[in-house]
Amino acid sequence: MAEAGSIHGHGEARVQGALVAALGRERALRLESGVELGPFTIAYQTYGRLDAERRNAILICHALTGDQHVASRHPVTGKPGWWESMVGPGRVIDTERYFVICANVLGGCMGSSGPTEIDPASGKPYGLAFPVVTIADMVNAQALLLDHIGIPDLFCVIGGSMGGMQVLQWAASYPDRVFAAIPIACAARHSAQNIAFHEVGRQAIMADPEWRNGDYLSFGTNPRSGLAVARMAAHITYLSETALHRKFGRNLQNRERITFGFEADFQVESYLRHQGSTFVERFDANSYLYITRAMDYFDLAAEHGGVLAKAFSGTRTRFCVVSFTSDWLFPTRESREVVHALNAAAANVSFVEIESDKGHDAFLLDEPEMFKILRGFLEGSAEHRGLRR
Amino acid sequence: MAEAGSIHGHGEARVQGALVAALGRERALRLESGVELGPFTIAYQTYGRLDAERRNAILICHALTGDQHVASRHPVTGKPGWWESMVGPGRVIDTERYFVICANVLGGCMGSSGPTEIDPASGKPYGLAFPVVTIADMVNAQALLLDHIGIPDLFCVIGGSMGGMQVLQWAASYPDRVFAAIPIACAARHSAQNIAFHEVGRQAIMADPEWRNGDYLSFGTNPRSGLAVARMAAHITYLSETALHRKFGRNLQNRERITFGFEADFQVESYLRHQGSTFVERFDANSYLYITRAMDYFDLAAEHGGVLAKAFSGTRTRFCVVSFTSDWLFPTRESREVVHALNAAAANVSFVEIESDKGHDAFLLDEPEMFKILRGFLEGSAEHRGLRR
Repeated sequence: MAEAGSIHGHGEARVQGALVAALGRERALRLESGVELGPFTIAYQTYGRLDAERRNAILICHALTGDQHVASRHPVTGKPGWWESMVGPGRVIDTERYFVICANVLGGCMGSSGPTEIDPASGKPYGLAFPVVTIADMVNAQALLLDHIGIPDLFCVIGGSMGGMQVLQWAASYPDRVFAAIPIACAARHSAQNIAFHEVGRQAIMADPEWRNGDYLSFGTNPRSGLAVARMAAHITYLSETALHRKFGRNLQNRERITFGFEADFQVESYLRHQGSTFVERFDANSYLYITRAMDYFDLAAEHGGVLAKAFSGTRTRFCVVSFTSDWLFPTRESREVVHALNAAAANVSFVEIESDKGHDAFLLDEPEMFKILRGFLEGSAEHRGLRR
Repeated sequence: MAEAGSIHGHGEARVQGALVAALGRERALRLESGVELGPFTIAYQTYGRLDAERRNAILICHALTGDQHVASRHPVTGKPGWWESMVGPGRVIDTERYFVICANVLGGCMGSSGPTEIDPASGKPYGLAFPVVTIADMVNAQALLLDHIGIPDLFCVIGGSMGGMQVLQWAASYPDRVFAAIPIACAARHSAQNIAFHEVGRQAIMADPEWRNGDYLSFGTNPRSGLAVARMAAHITYLSETALHRKFGRNLQNRERITFGFEADFQVESYLRHQGSTFVERFDANSYLYITRAMDYFDLAAEHGGVLAKAFSGTRTRFCVVSFTSDWLFPTRESREVVHALNAAAANVSFVEIESDKGHDAFLLDEPEMFKILRGFLEGSAEHRGLRR
């Protein structure tokens, strides 16, 4: 049901079922590092139709390992989109009412420019020659994509986890292009513990000899083991202890008793191994390095003299901040800090902490209270914006 | 100040400054797996003097990566013993009053039989030919060590984390040999989340090509990278988010600004890398597999029809259970489960949850409240046992 529509401009190509915009051709994108990036590509999907006034666009920002396939089948895994519970006809983000855009982040591995893509300068895959990007760079690239598509401003920008970081950055960088913003299960800066977990994942990848100092695409190798370990470590942080206990406890995997060995005796081990091995089928190790780094570097207050409220001063965006009680990766107190800053900036903000034992991943799951709250928030915002029903 | 003393029997040798008892020569130790292990060695240290009645012995059980050097310089790192804040002349565990024993666990890598030691059957290092051991096996080996030294029963057995698991196992397996028991920061069974973290560490080690299917000692290689990653992942779980934030926050490491690269920009990254690289200097990768596995397998209730109280039925041991508020690896609720079971068994039990933001590692650190409580508990217990001052 992805509709490219007639609004897409020149310089478009379809790669693996996604639209790919060629950007930064006339003028390079200046990254936060100072590097000038251009030309570059952003792969994206759209769903629904842009209205005549071009005012019903919702941008969905994906998390660390997500991509543009938010509500359509993934071309590699064949699985449904990663947020089909939220996005689709009649869903909270109703594709019969809104024009939905979801773009692979800069640095990603699903068609946007990143370490797996060909460096136009060398004709070889970028690898570590790709510049390190930030959340602000991702957002700036998305803003150029909107220019390219021809969308002056967004009705709403929404995302969870790293997607939520992008939402906050959008509201800070482009206040006039964001009518409503929904940052979910995120923070205005990455914590020491979260940086630490990311560093473990990166070290696991870089310790894999197949990584070849990041040049594995040239060598025809793939640091699968390292990436799988990185994923396993990260995956634990996406769940709550309660959820792990409820799902697996100390249950054994297809056996009556422990085997006194190092096979996956416990279901939780088998589950984790599966998470690791399926992940490497769809994700790139260098992209994992780049995107975790972008999250580590995220600190919205730092850009504003250490005062988060200044990031939102004068904002007219309507915010709905969402957290989950059992999320220990982005605990509620970090959402509260965002809310306090928004309050200090006299912003229009709703905040809800949702009771859930599903941990950080709750934002991706069937959470009726989240759906209900966001449906209400979007309907109210649509009314304020004067969108037709 | 380690005193071997005259009580040590025949079959002793000093290896790297530690005493090594050769055990299981006449009769092999039957492991929980059914394997008969013998002969085998247990390396240990003692401090202080055994009194004439042989009633003042305290056994200290070490944690996952600890060893017998609890209160004397480590022969490899040159660092002080791992619990010198607790153990020594005039300390809570007063070596002028008590005879302190600390043994390297079965499966360890500091002189006790384990995967790094020579298999008498083959004349080569055991590697994965070493049988998988359990916490109960470790405790049974320690009981043989006490027989060997000539200690009929312990005044006290104490330990934190995996050491606490051994304490609980001691009280369950040898109730008549344990006058007082102090399990700290532990649980009666390993949780799904903790198994998951261990599995990540094991996968990191086994993914390292230098591991050579566990046979790296024969190949002259060493899976240092994998072991370092395992340590890094585990180390995060030993600290609290608060402690990480207080110690490091988002502070940069010897630099003014982020470098837009994958070096250790943040102090927390540099700290973790240091933890990984120093750990591999003193620890063996296969031992890490074996000892984590022993912890995963620990489930004291399972041995007693699923009823933890039955593990302690009829016990006359005096218990002091200690947990820490910010310990998320072994949270207080798991200590409470132990206390409930002890109460159900009508045991003599004190329980204290200590306010600390230092996470699981608090038990190893300067925690005045813990020292005060344990000093009081030990003095009261010594009085009940009629130990001379």
